[in-house]
Amino acid sequence: MHQTLAEKILQTHCREQITGPGQIVKCNISLALANDITAPLAIKSLKAMEVDAVFDPSRVALVCDHFTPNKDIASAEQVKLVREFARAQGIVHYYEGGEVGVEHALLPELGIVGPGDIVVGADSHTCTYGGLGAFATGLGSTDVAAAMALGETWFKVPETIRVEISGHMDPYVTGKDLILNLIGRIGVSGALYKALEFGGPVIRDMDVEARMTMANMAIEAGGKVGLFPVDETTLVYARDHGRSGDVLLAPDPDASYARVMHMDVTGMEPQIACPHLPDNVKPVSQVKDVRVDQVVLGSCTNGRISDLRRAAKLIKGKKVAKGVRFVVLPATPGIYKQALKEGLIETFMDAGAIVGPPTCGPCLGGHMGILAGGEKCLATTNRNFRGRMGSLDAEVYLAGPDVAAATAVAGEIVHPETI
Amino acid sequence: MHQTLAEKILQTHCREQITGPGQIVKCNISLALANDITAPLAIKSLKAMEVDAVFDPSRVALVCDHFTPNKDIASAEQVKLVREFARAQGIVHYYEGGEVGVEHALLPELGIVGPGDIVVGADSHTCTYGGLGAFATGLGSTDVAAAMALGETWFKVPETIRVEISGHMDPYVTGKDLILNLIGRIGVSGALYKALEFGGPVIRDMDVEARMTMANMAIEAGGKVGLFPVDETTLVYARDHGRSGDVLLAPDPDASYARVMHMDVTGMEPQIACPHLPDNVKPVSQVKDVRVDQVVLGSCTNGRISDLRRAAKLIKGKKVAKGVRFVVLPATPGIYKQALKEGLIETFMDAGAIVGPPTCGPCLGGHMGILAGGEKCLATTNRNFRGRMGSLDAEVYLAGPDVAAATAVAGEIVHPETI
Repeated sequence: MHQTLAEKILQTHCREQITGPGQIVKCNISLALANDITAPLAIKSLKAMEVDAVFDPSRVALVCDHFTPNKDIASAEQVKLVREFARAQGIVHYYEGGEVGVEHALLPELGIVGPGDIVVGADSHTCTYGGLGAFATGLGSTDVAAAMALGETWFKVPETIRVEISGHMDPYVTGKDLILNLIGRIGVSGALYKALEFGGPVIRDMDVEARMTMANMAIEAGGKVGLFPVDETTLVYARDHGRSGDVLLAPDPDASYARVMHMDVTGMEPQIACPHLPDNVKPVSQVKDVRVDQVVLGSCTNGRISDLRRAAKLIKGKKVAKGVRFVVLPATPGIYKQALKEGLIETFMDAGAIVGPPTCGPCLGGHMGILAGGEKCLATTNRNFRGRMGSLDAEVYLAGPDVAAATAVAGEIVHPETI
Repeated sequence: MHQTLAEKILQTHCREQITGPGQIVKCNISLALANDITAPLAIKSLKAMEVDAVFDPSRVALVCDHFTPNKDIASAEQVKLVREFARAQGIVHYYEGGEVGVEHALLPELGIVGPGDIVVGADSHTCTYGGLGAFATGLGSTDVAAAMALGETWFKVPETIRVEISGHMDPYVTGKDLILNLIGRIGVSGALYKALEFGGPVIRDMDVEARMTMANMAIEAGGKVGLFPVDETTLVYARDHGRSGDVLLAPDPDASYARVMHMDVTGMEPQIACPHLPDNVKPVSQVKDVRVDQVVLGSCTNGRISDLRRAAKLIKGKKVAKGVRFVVLPATPGIYKQALKEGLIETFMDAGAIVGPPTCGPCLGGHMGILAGGEKCLATTNRNFRGRMGSLDAEVYLAGPDVAAATAVAGEIVHPETI
């Protein structure tokens, strides 16, 4: 049928025959998602639509992860509203308190999202699940409310940009660097309403966590989704996280693409997205004399166990530079507990880090590390828009976990091999 | 000389002969303290007084512990202001980021305060150091600024209430219960501008951390200070925390007291301060059917390693009740690291707690666990004033670490022996 990965997944959720980009199709959804910021808006919409019940209480996820532990009265009231809705509706996948993790790390970990799913979330980084081969995308809260009510939504079948990645990755280069490099090339609108479809030998050898890091930032190039094939690596991950019935999924060899890009990663340095856009990307060697006040390791982009392991390995036995706040936020309680078992939390604490609970925290300027005017932060998060992490006069640099650990130690942005 | 403990300590810092209560005396201070909320006010006052330099940069402590990791732009700007002042003045004891702990836990741990000291702090719980035999009291930010400038301040010599404590403490009864019981008896104004001086066999056998918990809440009875003798237990603690030159200190046997109270703790139950004042105290058996939404273990009152140990021992192998948020905040990085080594953090995480970084956090309604309207919280903190932890329509109950752990497991306020 000459279908791209996006078309193939949509097809399995759609009665109509998918013929190609631009077609408007109605698809059943696997899951609708909202968080403590967006769920209250979706709940309000459901009330306005006079919807009494969600389509399926086991296929709606509500994750109170953004401003929690509640940072103020307003956020406490938001969570209360979501909690009461979840209780009234019998929502199976409701998370708050000690059970909560950053939504896009938590749902894959618990097997609530997985290969071949269609997931719509009232959060722009819903695209993360593309790392598992799910057609997952952020919608506005009202559209998510409609999906919660109906169990289906409409899509315009997106064009696809195929990204073939080959070559040899240097030891300090991660999925984050590849996606930053790509965004740097195509720009923040480079994939507007398009599917990014990743493939090639580097992707074949890449673990699922790194794939999720890359898919997570598809939206930073404007992408509708960022899709990885479902291969044996994916299926092993899915089974390990309690999923069953998932099947292999790949684009047809003769699928039709809007564009095919080739990236050779051989010799690529760690990448830095400089202020104030994720496409202002430079190799680390070209980012000189940037002293930082804060480093953040965490978020739905890079708060997983593999990220903590990489950073801990680099920082072990070293100290965070005087005057630098190194905020480490394991993305879920499961990740936190695994990091405890492996001694990573101890490594971070011994180095002088601040280890916080799972939360989106400072990534979106919520709490747990907000910046004052004139401050600079290097973060493993996904956006460095002006003012996103606090003051309009602060600067945020984006990078992977290795650069984060090295920068925390050096007090300035450096290549990990220099510490 | 017939002097109370308060008079004895003041005397060692004062050239005049102290003759008794009511006398106004000028004393040199050992340390002046402020935090991220109050230091900016003190700094402003210093500027208004045209003071260029603090009296001694090694005897001013600035601890950014209240709204950190920075919860918003305003708090980030506050910390920045304090940081810049600290750098300009060469303040030796400046703490933020990964080095910060709750001030009243951090300064004793680092030996910065100790026996016989006079400490004035722009924080009402400065009285905590009375547990070490320091005359330590909270002043307004302007008065602390004057002390920072001059190295001295004036006091009206307080009358003293002597509290003799005897009997046998039940296993689940702690220093927190004794001080709550006392406040319940004498009321929130019961020791207004008076020194509370503790003694008797129970105090003799009490460790320094429990003494600090008790001294911490002297202010909740209106006390100017809460004082414990400097005995061998104190000196061992002081030496273990890097102090030298400290000496034994006890009231004269024939000292003159405004009042002498006798408490027999035999058979005393764990105590609960019910909403909305710390003197609305009941034994736990009389607090029935109070379901809670949140439990907080931490703060300058009960965030020390002994508190974490007690709570962890009770909760080990058990689970936090569904729907309860159990927020655990080790009070300093040192305590956090010790708790890591002893497996306490793992115990809390396995139980389903939220473990946060050292911060005052929700105690004063700052962040990390703010309450919505209608919510109830049991906390090991020191104040349950209406609205202190969030919504004016929330309720806070105060108790010790054992009751906190038991309540987190039961989901309602219970005696620790029932879980």
